This record gives sequence, C-alpha cells and structure tokens, in this order.
Amino acid sequence: MEQYVRIEYGQMLKTFQSILEKEGLDAEKALQCARILTDNSFDGFDSHGVLRFEDFADRMKNGGMDKSAEPMIIRSEKAFECWDGNKGIGPLNAIAMSERAVDLANRFGIGIAAIRNTTHWMRGGTYGKHIAEHGCFGICWTNTKANMKAWGTDKEIIGNNPIVFSAPSSEERSIVLDMALSQYSYGKLTAMEMAGRMLPFFGGFDRNGKLTKDPGLILESRNAVPIGYWKGYGLALMLDIFSSVLSGGVSTLSMPEQGHTVSQVFIAINPGVNGSSAVEGIIQELKKNGEEVHYPGEGTEKRRAENLSSGVSVPYPVWNSIMERNAK
Amino acid sequence: MEQYVRIEYGQMLKTFQSILEKEGLDAEKALQCARILTDNSFDGFDSHGVLRFEDFADRMKNGGMDKSAEPMIIRSEKAFECWDGNKGIGPLNAIAMSERAVDLANRFGIGIAAIRNTTHWMRGGTYGKHIAEHGCFGICWTNTKANMKAWGTDKEIIGNNPIVFSAPSSEERSIVLDMALSQYSYGKLTAMEMAGRMLPFFGGFDRNGKLTKDPGLILESRNAVPIGYWKGYGLALMLDIFSSVLSGGVSTLSMPEQGHTVSQVFIAINPGVNGSSAVEGIIQELKKNGEEVHYPGEGTEKRRAENLSSGVSVPYPVWNSIMERNAK
Repeated sequence: MEQYVRIEYGQMLKTFQSILEKEGLDAEKALQCARILTDNSFDGFDSHGVLRFEDFADRMKNGGMDKSAEPMIIRSEKAFECWDGNKGIGPLNAIAMSERAVDLANRFGIGIAAIRNTTHWMRGGTYGKHIAEHGCFGICWTNTKANMKAWGTDKEIIGNNPIVFSAPSSEERSIVLDMALSQYSYGKLTAMEMAGRMLPFFGGFDRNGKLTKDPGLILESRNAVPIGYWKGYGLALMLDIFSSVLSGGVSTLSMPEQGHTVSQVFIAINPGVNGSSAVEGIIQELKKNGEEVHYPGEGTEKRRAENLSSGVSVPYPVWNSIMERNAK
Repeated sequence: MEQYVRIEYGQMLKTFQSILEKEGLDAEKALQCARILTDNSFDGFDSHGVLRFEDFADRMKNGGMDKSAEPMIIRSEKAFECWDGNKGIGPLNAIAMSERAVDLANRFGIGIAAIRNTTHWMRGGTYGKHIAEHGCFGICWTNTKANMKAWGTDKEIIGNNPIVFSAPSSEERSIVLDMALSQYSYGKLTAMEMAGRMLPFFGGFDRNGKLTKDPGLILESRNAVPIGYWKGYGLALMLDIFSSVLSGGVSTLSMPEQGHTVSQVFIAINPGVNGSSAVEGIIQELKKNGEEVHYPGEGTEKRRAENLSSGVSVPYPVWNSIMERNAK
C-alpha cells in the first residue's frame, strides 16, 4: 500500500525553489516557478504541481526549455502585442503575458498579448486568476500538440487546447473556469485506469468507434471525445487558428514530433470601477439557489483552504525523490 | 403529407423587405433585416430564417422590440465601448456592434463592444461572419433567458448562451463556429421529436436524472445537457457574467419572466496584413488530411451554395401565410 506524507506550503515552496536554483535559475525566477507549482498542488492539481515537478526541473537541462531565455516583443499595435517566447520557461512567459494584457487593458479598456514559441504553461487557471486579481476579466488559451481526432475521422491532428475564463470579485473569490477541450485529460484517464475505475460519463471511443466509459479502452484507441462532440472539435480548431496566427506561431497541424513549442493568447478586459462588485452580485444571486449551485473555481478554493490548513498529501516515493535531489 | 415550395433568394428577400416596410421599418433597415433572415435560411438555418420570420415581424408590433430605437453609447474607454440597445431590433443592433468592434480593432489592434438591453440576434454566426469579412478575427456571444439547469441541481437558472468564433480567410471562406452551449437546441429537440427520431448522442436527462437520447423525455424534463456536462455549465455562467457586467445589463439570473432583454459581447482582433493568408494556410494543411476533415462553417457554405442554386425548400403553409401577409 502506498505511503503518503503531508507537506506544508512553506516546505514545498522552499524545496522547489532550492532545486530550481541548483538548476541554474536566479533566485527570483526560481521563487516564481516554485510558487506556481506549489500553488497548483495546493489548489488540488498535483498533476501540474508536485507530481510534475521533477519533469519540470529536468526540462531545464534536457533542452525542453531554455532557462535563460526572455520573451521578446515582435509587434505592438496599441492594445495588441505579439511576443516570441524564445522557448523560455512556460509559466514565467505566461505570467509575463498576463501582466502585459492587464497593462494594455488598463490603458485601452481591453488588451491582448499573443505569444509564440513558448513552452507548457502547466495550468491555465494560474494566469486567469492572476488577471482577475488585477481587477480584469481574463480569457486565455494555449494550443497543444495533437491529442484528439478530427471529428468523424481517425486523424489525430487536433489539440485539446485548454481555455480559461476568469472574473474579478470584490469579495476576492477566485472565479476561474479552466477547461481542456477533451472531456477528460489523458492524466485523468491514466489515473482512473490505474485505480481500476470507470468514468462517470463517456470519455471517448474504443477501437471500434463506440463511446465508452472505460479509460483503458480510450487510452488504447487514443480517441478521447471533445466536449460537446463536434462542437468541442470545432472550438479546439478555432483556438489553434487564433493562437498560432495572432502570434505568428506554429499550429498544432504543423508541430514537429519532438521539441515542439506552443502559442498562447491572453486577453484582459478592464470592467471599470464597479465591475468586481457587479460580478459579486451575480455570484450572490446564484448562491440564493442553494449551496449546491457552484461557480467555476469554487471547488478549487475549497481544496486550497483544506490543503493550506493540513498540508498536501504526497506519495512518499515522489517526495523522497525530490528531497534526495535537493540534498545533492 | 406536407407540401414544400422552393423559394429563390431574391424572392424571399423582397417579400421579407416588403412586409417589414409595412410594419413601419424604413427601406434601408427593412432590407438589412430581410437580408439577415434570408441569409439565415439560405445558410441552412430556417429556424432562424423563414420559419421565424412572422414571429420576428410580430415582435415589432407587440412590444417585443422597439422598431424605432437606435443603440446609444454609454461609455467609451478607447478600445472598449459600452452601448445600450434600447430594446431595439436585435439583428440591427448586433450588426452595428460588430462594426463598432471592427472599427476599434482597426484603430487599436483589438476592440470590444458590449451591449445591454438588446433583443434576440437570431443567429450569432451572422455577426462572426460579418467581422471575418472585414478582415478581423471575431468572438461574440449573447446571454439568453434561463433554459438549462445548474450542473448537478434541478434549478433552471442558466442560459445556453451561444458563442461564435470566426476567422478571416484570403480565399473568402466562411470560417465560423457558432454554437449554443446546450448539446442540442430546444428547436432541434422539438424537430426530432416531431419526426419521431432519437438523437445521435445523449442530449439531456429524463425526469429521473438519467441521460437520454429521447428528445421527448428531454422536452418533458426541461433538462438539456450542457456541452461537456459541468464544463459547458461553467462556460455558460462565465459568458453570462462577462456579457451582463461588461455591458451593465441584466444577467440570466435576474431576467424577468416576460419582456426580458439580453446582453451581448463583440470582440474583434485585427491580425495584421498576413493574417488571412496564414489562416488559409492552416485550412489547407487541415484539408491535406482528407476531404472528410471539416472546418467550422464548411457545411454551412455547402448548404448555402446548394440553396442559392436551387432555392430554399419551405413548407407550403408557412410560405403561403407570408405571401398572404404581404398581400394585405
């Protein structure tokens, strides 16, 4: 039976920062990355936090991303900026673009930063939340390498391109919708298969093209279903077109097998002085229908509060490996 | 057995225009509305075209919309304009907002026009196509009155808020994704029930909360499923929050039973000189995977070409009633 250890926020943050400094990041960047990955775990997304930390650290050595690169502006058209990520650190590039979008929104009402040639942002919700904390509405998305089939065909040519919508709240709620366009992520399918469990809803097609709740059959066919079937397929394609064309980057259809980079879009809208209290008014109206009615991000907030109080539960071998790496 | 008549484009357009002029619209506005409804039918969406024309004309008499109202600007913050639709004619307000967004995008790179207190836009694809024809990327959506349940509850408090993404193409393709956030529209459910057919995929829940393909059971329970289940619910709520707060309008949660108006958002992004050829490049890359791989809007283009060549097939009683109305 697997053993778990509970890790406090400060301990995880310091450990991550220390390892990233040993990998050659300066103290500030190491802290920023460590905070994003720690926050992901405390928000309940270990798959983009502690469970992925060593892979993230490795990618700075093996050429998966360039730890010394900075994003570079390519084109500036008042409220629309286009950047090259120079294959730098995905989460840092994405935070920088969120802040560019907010700055533009504060000057022009709305702003967009599109970035090409960047690397995996880990979890999109991070950037939606960041934009909302600066008082703006946010819309962000990324393209990904191909992991879904074009609707009605057996061509695996479409990404499950996650999209994020976020809204500021005068009560400092984190109202963040962060959704991949496959019904379930491959990480979720793998976890459910390992646990020997069926999915609650159809998650994809088996080899014979029949909808199934069996995660193993979907992993075998590599045929995860887009949200809303043909609708999610269409949306995934549009998001890829927007992000790659607006940034001048590479579309999913043209990504190389190895060493691909991604394109991302960050839109911020400044709602004016009463925006965040108007949002709060809608949430309160929603909640009048009962506590069981949820807004996007509410579950994440709850998990975060629990984890901050009792620590995140991490499989012992995972944490042990991280501790050993830090001791080297 | 129902009889059908084939109506040519020019005949439908002139008939609609004539009736709308008799309802008191000036010639130009009557032509604009007539064109939008005729185009909807020729694009293959009769439910928002000829089949809905008399209802549309009636709404100018019965107070459903104010035929003499013009949209009025409320707030202008460089690239972000907020408008009041004054309960005017929904399609004309929406065309005007599309054009405001394009003008702002041409001046600032990106632009947003949010409008409150407007009426049903008929079909969102109209406005996405309009923005793309002006060389910009478009994102538009509307809130609606409540017609879906909050996920996991029996509270019918969420709209199926259609959203549109469109992209310009140097080959003048109409690349337009127009999707409601319920898996099937109530119109589609009704049509399938009348035809005695089952849905190809689960479209909602029956009274006992079990997923079903039987359109009759979904109409009975009024529990259409959002695309991607909890994901579509979250997206519908976010779109409502964005559109109502950014426009200062009424959210779905607060709409009155009778005489509600809606709030809409129109975002346009100017991709620069090479944008539409870059989009075309992606579509051509997509099509290398086979003719069976489609882009959003491709089916609509095909239906439009067919209908322009042979006329739209309209149930005889529907066309007869329209002709009689025009003869009065």
